[in-house]
Amino acid sequence: MLLREAILKDLEFLLYDVFATEELCGREKFREHSKEGFNEFLDSAFKVSEKYFLPYRSASDEHEPTFSAGRVIVRPEIKTALAALADLGMFAATQDTEDGGLQLPWCVGQAAMALFHSSNVATTTFAFLTMAGSNVILAHGTEEQRRLYAQPMLSGRFLGTMDLTEPQAGSSLGDIRTSAVPAADGTFRLKGTKMYISAGDHEISENIVHLVLARLPDAPPGPKGISLFIVPKYLVNADGTLGEHNDVAVSGIIHKMGWRGIPSTIVNYGDSNCCIGYLLGPPHEGLACMFHMMNEARQIIGLAASMLGYAAYLESLEYARNRPQGRKPGNRDLKSPQVNIVEHPDVKRMLLMQKAYVEGGLALCLYGARLADDVGTAGSEAERHDAKLLLSLLTPVIKAWPAEYCLQANYLAIQVYGGYGYSREYPVEQLYRDNRLNPIHEGTNGIQSLDLLGRKVPAGDGRAFGLLIAAIRSTLVETTKGPYRTVEAMANMLSLLVERITERTSELRGALHTEARATVLSHASIYMEVIGHVVVGWLWLRQAAVAAQRIGNTVGEEKEFYLGKLHTARYFITYELPLAAAKLDVLSNLDPMFTDMEEAWL
Amino acid sequence: MLLREAILKDLEFLLYDVFATEELCGREKFREHSKEGFNEFLDSAFKVSEKYFLPYRSASDEHEPTFSAGRVIVRPEIKTALAALADLGMFAATQDTEDGGLQLPWCVGQAAMALFHSSNVATTTFAFLTMAGSNVILAHGTEEQRRLYAQPMLSGRFLGTMDLTEPQAGSSLGDIRTSAVPAADGTFRLKGTKMYISAGDHEISENIVHLVLARLPDAPPGPKGISLFIVPKYLVNADGTLGEHNDVAVSGIIHKMGWRGIPSTIVNYGDSNCCIGYLLGPPHEGLACMFHMMNEARQIIGLAASMLGYAAYLESLEYARNRPQGRKPGNRDLKSPQVNIVEHPDVKRMLLMQKAYVEGGLALCLYGARLADDVGTAGSEAERHDAKLLLSLLTPVIKAWPAEYCLQANYLAIQVYGGYGYSREYPVEQLYRDNRLNPIHEGTNGIQSLDLLGRKVPAGDGRAFGLLIAAIRSTLVETTKGPYRTVEAMANMLSLLVERITERTSELRGALHTEARATVLSHASIYMEVIGHVVVGWLWLRQAAVAAQRIGNTVGEEKEFYLGKLHTARYFITYELPLAAAKLDVLSNLDPMFTDMEEAWL
Repeated sequence: MLLREAILKDLEFLLYDVFATEELCGREKFREHSKEGFNEFLDSAFKVSEKYFLPYRSASDEHEPTFSAGRVIVRPEIKTALAALADLGMFAATQDTEDGGLQLPWCVGQAAMALFHSSNVATTTFAFLTMAGSNVILAHGTEEQRRLYAQPMLSGRFLGTMDLTEPQAGSSLGDIRTSAVPAADGTFRLKGTKMYISAGDHEISENIVHLVLARLPDAPPGPKGISLFIVPKYLVNADGTLGEHNDVAVSGIIHKMGWRGIPSTIVNYGDSNCCIGYLLGPPHEGLACMFHMMNEARQIIGLAASMLGYAAYLESLEYARNRPQGRKPGNRDLKSPQVNIVEHPDVKRMLLMQKAYVEGGLALCLYGARLADDVGTAGSEAERHDAKLLLSLLTPVIKAWPAEYCLQANYLAIQVYGGYGYSREYPVEQLYRDNRLNPIHEGTNGIQSLDLLGRKVPAGDGRAFGLLIAAIRSTLVETTKGPYRTVEAMANMLSLLVERITERTSELRGALHTEARATVLSHASIYMEVIGHVVVGWLWLRQAAVAAQRIGNTVGEEKEFYLGKLHTARYFITYELPLAAAKLDVLSNLDPMFTDMEEAWL
Repeated sequence: MLLREAILKDLEFLLYDVFATEELCGREKFREHSKEGFNEFLDSAFKVSEKYFLPYRSASDEHEPTFSAGRVIVRPEIKTALAALADLGMFAATQDTEDGGLQLPWCVGQAAMALFHSSNVATTTFAFLTMAGSNVILAHGTEEQRRLYAQPMLSGRFLGTMDLTEPQAGSSLGDIRTSAVPAADGTFRLKGTKMYISAGDHEISENIVHLVLARLPDAPPGPKGISLFIVPKYLVNADGTLGEHNDVAVSGIIHKMGWRGIPSTIVNYGDSNCCIGYLLGPPHEGLACMFHMMNEARQIIGLAASMLGYAAYLESLEYARNRPQGRKPGNRDLKSPQVNIVEHPDVKRMLLMQKAYVEGGLALCLYGARLADDVGTAGSEAERHDAKLLLSLLTPVIKAWPAEYCLQANYLAIQVYGGYGYSREYPVEQLYRDNRLNPIHEGTNGIQSLDLLGRKVPAGDGRAFGLLIAAIRSTLVETTKGPYRTVEAMANMLSLLVERITERTSELRGALHTEARATVLSHASIYMEVIGHVVVGWLWLRQAAVAAQRIGNTVGEEKEFYLGKLHTARYFITYELPLAAAKLDVLSNLDPMFTDMEEAWL
């Protein structure tokens, strides 16, 4: 098996064996599909990612986009890769066939995207921004906006951006200042500056569709006075042909630690007072519309983080299998050949930890994607509603946990390589730098944690959290009564922690309504780590339960695969969950450590 | 106070208030010195580091050394900076006055080096390699070698390198192949290739003194067949003048993630069969001689890691104090000005964690340096012997703990900055990349952990470990009986963990002699994290105890400083030690998780 085919195998295990994705084919929307069809799509995606995305990953890091005389130049391979992606149908994979899509389930689409993230995260970002942008236009746009902007985005002819951050307004989006003034013809004139705009300019697509947050003249202050605008680089005529260059200009690019293959730009609107924008959705409700895209982006950042970790894990595994160094303890024959480092227990430990984090992160992201399918197509209104609540609760976890722990996996991949690990001549150092952006962009992990503990957990009197615990308990009931003693032992360990976190969370929710609120929220980041570990521990238990069921009649590679799943689940539950339990104890004390600390003490 | 003067203040606190460095002036060797003299030296070092080292830190990262036509070109500022360092007397600061040194205590010298590491780790590395190299020559060289090589190194005229790693032999040094054949004139002819040789070539010093590990023709296999050689770039005549270019050539440079201001080179010896080397120390005992340098290098890597973390902590603190973003919770006035992010509890949390790690790491390194002074000059043979044992036990901890946790501090510094954090336009992303090398070079953290648990802890039937525990218990006795209730509570928490780790370590030591040996050692890295936290927790308790004693009569900045020390100690002991305790539980189970795992499961 080729090194990276391991991802494909894991995707299929998760999709079908763990998350029963073929059941979706029983739903009206997906009845034309089959497991075989899904697999064909994934196989094609794998081939495209290997052929068009992977080969220049390193080159696009080394030779960053350049900016001069107002123009951003990116590598030509990006255009070729995106064309192959469009040929695959990826831009519209999950759209309805009537919109020109393949009408695939969201989780299958995300599984395919996982392959692209693992092979070239920067180029994949051009695509995912475009896909997420087209989703916003399809959801909130007029018929004409759908036709003029979303359709060319779905075919990959136009690429998209999301334009939120301003120099003085990052996490505090309510403070953006970009203005939009109504013109007589129903359009708007925008003026302002945005930064960290990925793919804010380039010449690899016919047009660029910026989705820009701005304020109308009568806007109330804060987040409730923000509207969303379509601002094309080239104006689009009513027949879809391109008109003049709009008054949008890149004034600089930001030089990032990683993710260098896509330009991060500073974009000016209206330097000549004629930047034309089109209101998307209702006035003053732009942030709500944009959250459609942001939630999707947050989920895909989790996926990207998982796959950056996954790619490095596989590289370090390959390296460990082929790098001779040292001997087995007890071997006194100094002339004997060196063994490959994969045989050293400490290297095994680092590989096992990576596997636990990256396959756990991928499982978490695919679980979220599978929930998104339930939001859209589950059998009953109640099921759809519950799926939505649960996905909303988990979105910050899906973003933050892989960003933290799969970066940790990248750290370990470098350790496995030793000195080669930090050398740019080898692949893992880039993957580490790429992943370092993930705990920040699309909302820092701190912001995700506040969203989780301050908003999502208490929402609906804790109903979403209750759904999560119910889902976990359901697995626990199944696995503790099963015939597999190892799995039962894992279930018992997880169960103890689940009961404790349920109780503690209830106390924390209560405390949010007291004067201890600030103290509770000052522990949001620690709470995030605990919840993340519990959810990933649960998903590892589910993987272990499936592996235990299937392993009986298997031999060879198949059997090793399941043994690997069982062993890794046991690692995560035995070694990692106790650390989460210790964090839960610490945060439960509600020490005013952080709130009481004075600036002058630092 | 200037931002970076905080380091100077902390150094003085640690040196005098915590580690009683002025007591050294009562020893014969240091009787010409005084606290005031030490401080003058540190002040001068601070000025040199600010003026000559800091200004081009970023430029030397962006514009790496180049290699072409066999020549390595580095930035000219390095030469100027090293000349200023030589003028300061830094190269020979801790050498005896009869060798042209300042005869300063080792801990004062290391405190000064801390300042340089914080301002420019890459340039400082040219110096520390030279200083460590000259120490090896002074310890093991002939009178002539001391005169011809060590002396010009102590004045900064010659720079040094340490040449250990070969492409096929990194962690497994016993497998090096570079050969040294005796010539008729008593010199040797070397042949081989080394890699990761920092400062392996450049033209900023008159000469380069390579200290090279190689094998004599009659050498037994493995580590006991390695000898150490002086291989100068330019041969040195008996009168000290320079002769011909030796047969040493750089064949390439390695492009590193960080630490880019110093070239990491591949060095060939004897391409023309006339590379002349001089045996340093006895034949076949080169590794023992080199360990003199390696132990020093490991300690200084810990210091460099601490200071890279410290530098980023101060930058992120400054940023947090000046970056307006968001409002206080509960402030509903959306038109009110944004507050600086230092006021947000989650930002305070990240700053406090950084402070705990970097000041803890610095305390650990200075404690080690203070022990080194006791090794050399303590009043009795028994005290010197015990100090040596303790320093030997702690050397892997001093290397590995800061490399891991102060890198974690760099991670947090980036989080505080948000998007600016991963932008190369701001300083913290470089400091993070620089620090990522530290868990690897001079022996990976995995190797350090095996050294700690497999060698140092069981050595002498556990005597060194017993000395450590005795030293901690002595602090505990003082602090639990003291008048400071907060400190007493901290002491009680630490005490519980110390008793448990003492018991567990005894069990682990016993298990090392059983068939569980491999399982024990497979947990060495986790054990390292626990010991590191216990030792740093102890040093935080010592800082807190001093702060509690002194705070009484203070006001203003002085009082805030002590309050900061108390609060940070409380953070480390209350929030961090419970995680170490959980790790101790996990490793104590001695699960054969890592040893049992088969390669095919990955």
